[in-house]
Amino acid sequence: MPDDSFHVFDTTLRDGAQREGVTLTVADKLAIAGLLDEFGVGFIEGGWPGANPKDTEFFQRASQELDLEHAQLTAFGATRRPGARAADDPQVAALRESGAPVVTLVAKSDIRHVERALRTTGEENLAMIADTVAHLKECGRRVFLDCEHFFDGYRYDPGYALDVVRAAGAAGADAVVLCDTNGGMLPPGVGRTVAEVLEATGVRLGVHAQDDTGCAVANTLAAVDAGATHVQCTANGYGERVGNANLFSVVAALELKYGRRVLPRGRLAEASRVSAAIAELVNIAPATHQPYVGVSAFAHKAGLHASAIKVDPDLYQHTDPALVGNGMRMLVSDMAGRASVELKAEELGVDLGGDRALVGRVVDRVKEMEQAGYSFEAADASLELLLREERGDRPRYFTAESWRAITERRADGASVSEATVKLHVKGERVITTAEGNGPVNALDRALRSAVEGVYTALGGIQLADYKVRILDGGGGTGAVTRILITFGDGRGEWTTVGVGENVIDASWTALEQAITYGLMRQGYPAP
Amino acid sequence: MPDDSFHVFDTTLRDGAQREGVTLTVADKLAIAGLLDEFGVGFIEGGWPGANPKDTEFFQRASQELDLEHAQLTAFGATRRPGARAADDPQVAALRESGAPVVTLVAKSDIRHVERALRTTGEENLAMIADTVAHLKECGRRVFLDCEHFFDGYRYDPGYALDVVRAAGAAGADAVVLCDTNGGMLPPGVGRTVAEVLEATGVRLGVHAQDDTGCAVANTLAAVDAGATHVQCTANGYGERVGNANLFSVVAALELKYGRRVLPRGRLAEASRVSAAIAELVNIAPATHQPYVGVSAFAHKAGLHASAIKVDPDLYQHTDPALVGNGMRMLVSDMAGRASVELKAEELGVDLGGDRALVGRVVDRVKEMEQAGYSFEAADASLELLLREERGDRPRYFTAESWRAITERRADGASVSEATVKLHVKGERVITTAEGNGPVNALDRALRSAVEGVYTALGGIQLADYKVRILDGGGGTGAVTRILITFGDGRGEWTTVGVGENVIDASWTALEQAITYGLMRQGYPAP
Repeated sequence: MPDDSFHVFDTTLRDGAQREGVTLTVADKLAIAGLLDEFGVGFIEGGWPGANPKDTEFFQRASQELDLEHAQLTAFGATRRPGARAADDPQVAALRESGAPVVTLVAKSDIRHVERALRTTGEENLAMIADTVAHLKECGRRVFLDCEHFFDGYRYDPGYALDVVRAAGAAGADAVVLCDTNGGMLPPGVGRTVAEVLEATGVRLGVHAQDDTGCAVANTLAAVDAGATHVQCTANGYGERVGNANLFSVVAALELKYGRRVLPRGRLAEASRVSAAIAELVNIAPATHQPYVGVSAFAHKAGLHASAIKVDPDLYQHTDPALVGNGMRMLVSDMAGRASVELKAEELGVDLGGDRALVGRVVDRVKEMEQAGYSFEAADASLELLLREERGDRPRYFTAESWRAITERRADGASVSEATVKLHVKGERVITTAEGNGPVNALDRALRSAVEGVYTALGGIQLADYKVRILDGGGGTGAVTRILITFGDGRGEWTTVGVGENVIDASWTALEQAITYGLMRQGYPAP
Repeated sequence: MPDDSFHVFDTTLRDGAQREGVTLTVADKLAIAGLLDEFGVGFIEGGWPGANPKDTEFFQRASQELDLEHAQLTAFGATRRPGARAADDPQVAALRESGAPVVTLVAKSDIRHVERALRTTGEENLAMIADTVAHLKECGRRVFLDCEHFFDGYRYDPGYALDVVRAAGAAGADAVVLCDTNGGMLPPGVGRTVAEVLEATGVRLGVHAQDDTGCAVANTLAAVDAGATHVQCTANGYGERVGNANLFSVVAALELKYGRRVLPRGRLAEASRVSAAIAELVNIAPATHQPYVGVSAFAHKAGLHASAIKVDPDLYQHTDPALVGNGMRMLVSDMAGRASVELKAEELGVDLGGDRALVGRVVDRVKEMEQAGYSFEAADASLELLLREERGDRPRYFTAESWRAITERRADGASVSEATVKLHVKGERVITTAEGNGPVNALDRALRSAVEGVYTALGGIQLADYKVRILDGGGGTGAVTRILITFGDGRGEWTTVGVGENVIDASWTALEQAITYGLMRQGYPAP
């Protein structure tokens, strides 16, 4: 485990939760903390105990339920109120009582904010900082001081901003963190400021960058270049407005580009998994184009690249994707040439036997279907069925004669969905009806129950995700929709795609393929 | 208009189109080119004429249909083949015949790529560059040379990389662009390399940064700091893998942070509109958290901030959002306190009359509903109806007794949706049935036709967008869905939200509110 000389400090649960659209339950926060610990961060800022009941409950439950291997739980709070004693301040008491061994105090360091927002004097603000830091240190806590609006404040009144750093340092703060709260900085300014503050004060410095210029990662690294040894980040860059410095990008740069070990050995390879799992918990679709950990981060689409990648993959990637738990992917799209289709078939284990005409037919069909709105980039199972269809061995376990899905809200206020499907399965005509909590759920159940009579192994196949994408925003409910359906069988997952003007019809297409693919995975031969 | 001393070069239509999930038609490309010209970029790289029929058609139609005010259309292509003459090369001929006044040639500058991917000698590669650049210059074109994999090549064999720059410069290239093709660079390395190459060659340099480390914007700015005067970017950062340097972030930094005018006067304020319009055309949900231009870029959620923002907004934003055509927004969410609700009501024009109990009830209901999956951050119309409901003046133009939506695929393969609604409108019971190309479309039509008999002004209200978000990915079709529906009436748009396990039921909730809000906008008094 890395020693104390460098701090990877995560604030997903506190500052990250400020992101628009994010609402975390206490259970979410506990689960995310567990994942961050698995990734190996040094500090997990859990929230502001006392500021709201959810955060207070989090710290209560965390001390009982969380068994952190590497990370230290950190409570966030403010310095004491003007004109009082830290030891008597109820907000400071909540920090003490949270049970967290580490406390991050936020303080104003821009004199304008002290006077206009905090409505006190510069002198009293320094006293509040010194008193609160010293009090918590006496109580045995490690204390970090977050200097809000530091960079703007330093530009406006460098003397006062330096006084804040010195006051915290003199009171025993373990690190003073320079925050670009409004996020307007660029790397050269961050580097210059950190170097100057370090020289003027000698206090251990950290950095907290917001991404409003799109430079949060670079700003964080510029601070490290200038001598900062504590970086505050959030998973996937979640945070207020544009967001915060992305934990995974910062850590990957430090480990892979700087050659500096800041995580316990082997943990960087957990990055992609932890990133995706946190996105699930936060309930935001994973950022596919995120550096290092996004599913597109090592995906190649250009026909030009595809043919060269066959020669030498390392010439076309800036780092080995396995180091961050990711992998190279070839995308089959209408820009793809024959080389992409060949590589993709190889990846899927479908032998095209060097048949040029077959490859050409697949390229043509893919281009034509993508023109109509299909996207195979995320739907390997559909692509495999297409490859097999062109090769002549796509199994047809059942054929649909017709189906119907009804949703109604009754006069008593209850809503129900019901579906009927008429299938031919191994020569038999089967009619089934099922209810569901939506029309696609009802169709899924009716389809399964019709197929299960013959293919009993279907029982283990479960729907894992269902995505709807409207392809033409301008057309409203009349637009073309693309459905992606993901099923799993405990051993793996697969995704199929359906497209159409009618959302239920497109869902059926994807559903039918997903069940077919699942039966194929179970080893049922084509009937 | 800025002079030639600095080039804002956009490659959305060429390199941006490499983004996973993007498929552009010729019409899309023409529309995007028009928007980029409105934004005021100097160069629009349209594609690779001759490489595929779509790009060839684009250049044909562009010369007839596009009337560019500022930008010069640019064709992308490769240097001639080894062992031939540029004047005889059919690919070079396609560049000449594209009608584009500017050509960007891509060339290998990493000796390993020359030998392993291009399979020729370093010497022949230099000859290919010199010959092709000189030939196109003789034909009266401006020529830029993109040095693929420059930074990796320069690290491996700086002498050869410099020879490439010198060969292009000597042959008359108007700028030589150093490309971080694999995207692994960080700003200090980019700055150092650009400075060294500039000093060694004296050739005018540009930069093309990929975002694989999350530093493409900072890398581009580092190159400018070191003397580059040509930046290649893409709208919204679209591009292969993680993406390219984001045009809007780079230009905003240069104009607002550097104080350097790189667009015609007044065009920066088009950034947010152009960004969103291009996202629509590219058919990717706009990146809400994008710097400067995202809808969240100036959105404030924290209760702490909200109360301070009431005092002095400029202390809480790094730049004036109006400069990039954006605006500050207050978010109402379960983290919001009373101050946020008060500011939001003021923004919506709903007078709460300083009624503390009323504000408290709204805060409680918002928190409770967001817990259940609602999100009011994007649904101002639903929030306004909620505010009015608590204030006691939410209009009820109609009440639904029951409804039903049926989708079926008939045995002949055709799919149809049909909906029936039973409403009470001004004391009358109305039953209507309508068909649609999906269940929600059918419900929308049936609901309108029932309401229109009484409220005739409804005719002008149109559905503009329909979004489905699955809130619990793990639950598949059984998960809770959130529906956002946007309607417009020619004068503006409004969005409502519905949540439920049943996607059709949740859609109905949003639909009912959207129609109610539309009638309210038309000025119908509550019945």
